[in-house]
Amino acid sequence: MTGTTSIEWTGGRLRYVDQTKLPDEVIFVETDDYRVVARSIKGLEIRGAPAIGVAAAFAVVLAASPAGAEQEHAKSVDEAITHLALTRPTAVNLFSSLKRMRACLSGPAGSGTLRDRLLIEAMAIRQEDIVACRRIADSGVTLIQPGSTLLTHCHTGALATGGGGTALFIITEAHQRGLVRRVYVGETRPLLQGSRLTAWELMQHGIEASLITDSTAGFLMKQGRVDAVLVGADRITANGDVANKIGTYSLAVLAAHHHIPFYVAAPVSTIDFDLRTGDQIPIEERDSREVTQVRGVRVAPEGVAVYAPAFDVTPNEFVTALVTNAGIIRPPFADALEKLNQSLGTAAIT
Amino acid sequence: MTGTTSIEWTGGRLRYVDQTKLPDEVIFVETDDYRVVARSIKGLEIRGAPAIGVAAAFAVVLAASPAGAEQEHAKSVDEAITHLALTRPTAVNLFSSLKRMRACLSGPAGSGTLRDRLLIEAMAIRQEDIVACRRIADSGVTLIQPGSTLLTHCHTGALATGGGGTALFIITEAHQRGLVRRVYVGETRPLLQGSRLTAWELMQHGIEASLITDSTAGFLMKQGRVDAVLVGADRITANGDVANKIGTYSLAVLAAHHHIPFYVAAPVSTIDFDLRTGDQIPIEERDSREVTQVRGVRVAPEGVAVYAPAFDVTPNEFVTALVTNAGIIRPPFADALEKLNQSLGTAAIT
Repeated sequence: MTGTTSIEWTGGRLRYVDQTKLPDEVIFVETDDYRVVARSIKGLEIRGAPAIGVAAAFAVVLAASPAGAEQEHAKSVDEAITHLALTRPTAVNLFSSLKRMRACLSGPAGSGTLRDRLLIEAMAIRQEDIVACRRIADSGVTLIQPGSTLLTHCHTGALATGGGGTALFIITEAHQRGLVRRVYVGETRPLLQGSRLTAWELMQHGIEASLITDSTAGFLMKQGRVDAVLVGADRITANGDVANKIGTYSLAVLAAHHHIPFYVAAPVSTIDFDLRTGDQIPIEERDSREVTQVRGVRVAPEGVAVYAPAFDVTPNEFVTALVTNAGIIRPPFADALEKLNQSLGTAAIT
Repeated sequence: MTGTTSIEWTGGRLRYVDQTKLPDEVIFVETDDYRVVARSIKGLEIRGAPAIGVAAAFAVVLAASPAGAEQEHAKSVDEAITHLALTRPTAVNLFSSLKRMRACLSGPAGSGTLRDRLLIEAMAIRQEDIVACRRIADSGVTLIQPGSTLLTHCHTGALATGGGGTALFIITEAHQRGLVRRVYVGETRPLLQGSRLTAWELMQHGIEASLITDSTAGFLMKQGRVDAVLVGADRITANGDVANKIGTYSLAVLAAHHHIPFYVAAPVSTIDFDLRTGDQIPIEERDSREVTQVRGVRVAPEGVAVYAPAFDVTPNEFVTALVTNAGIIRPPFADALEKLNQSLGTAAIT
């Protein structure tokens, strides 16, 4: 699962791991129906901002089924894009990916069938993500001191991207270079991506990992047992504010209080240059059952009210550095990201 | 369950709710064997610092069974105290309670049988706790502004004490006076005392309660949706440092960052005047299965390492006020608690 892709295009179908079943079972879903992919994104079988972007791109290809006429394809592709855009509101990769796929509808004449253009674009999106992950890992590893004890939250490994991962790819890379002593993994309630996916992935790499409940992080930091915090991002705004899994903001404030570096790793595709600050990011609220039930077992009284945002927003002042495929970006973020955005206009980053 | 006792002495037996079964079932345990009580304390069927103190006192009475001779009673009481002291290390009420029970062994001649003296002392400990809870509620309610949205962690209601509760009793009292708009309840991983017990108790009172995952607290505060944080304590040291359920320290740092008052409610019996600072408090580590399993369902990979402290220590600088049965105590805590300790030498508080 490392460095390679967790979302495969095979024989005109899309194949991916159902992440909700991990780590108990590794079950693959294979489909030629974009609605199945949309349902998998909504149901978190596919999750992680970059992975959602890649999967959505291939889902659009599925909408241009081989049998139909070119015009019918355009119509069903349009429908698929609209349908897919409604799955999850926070991760920007979904929207940037769909925007690129939509652009294929108006591809130049003589540039192959619509389906060909869509497939080439989806392949490109995935390939860029693979390269982006690799660059993030190579950049990020330079931030890790030898003998580090690291803390991470949620899951940012191979499964969460089209490539090798973001924050977790930095960690596994740092481990390979002998820099990591231990990784503390926040279990990441409500859906336990930390215990189910990150702890599992770290164990597969043979990395010393210790699981903690999310609220243990502060006490760990107080004891001087965390050298750096690394997390991913679902959307980064033009000023460097970061939307990421709920709990990230608490970790960021705690890290700042304990003078621990707080690194956010994400591909440039996760940066939404159109939004000025994090206050403008739509925050998805999830079904209350994700809190009142754990893997189908009820843990709270029947009928209790729940506040269940899937993400929170961490203001840029708490971010030590953004680790991107365009390199390490440091404060002041607004200036640095403005410069990056300008350079994107003139040259490809990934 | 409000204002009355959740631990009953009935027909020479001890009767209490098995808190691990709530809120699914309200199951009472009734026993005349102190070992069963000890197992219940260790297994968290009885939990909450004051409740542990009360239950342990009655368990000692059970050790002086009616049938034995006075000398045998002394021996088995001594054994029971030693046995009970090994159940849980952090809550000081257990030890202060057992110390009082041990003092009964050397009671004055002509002051009844040992069993009588023990029973009178256990009854006194419980009665003091009932009065202490009431005083805490009456004092604490003066801190709550009309229309407040409150945040609490773990469970500090009637079940956690011999009386009506500590922090949660303040909240229910404030609600009765029409001061509370909403209460956010941290679910309190790993054992979910927040969802299972606090949310349940608040719903029974008809209080608007919203359950959150523990890591949502910071984001709530950032949105200005928390007016005050109220928690209990398992041990408070002479300088005002507070050991309480894991996650309390994170909440305290977050509250300070957002300029939100952070109140700790506990009876004077929870103050350990013998310990200078929180660094000296032994912190219990729990079985890793409490994190890797939720109500018997596995949520993490087989064999993963876990760091599972049951408590953390919040330095006094993060505490706005201690709410005790001796009134509201404000910084500087070392001075105020020193004065309180001196007054305890001369007059009974409870």
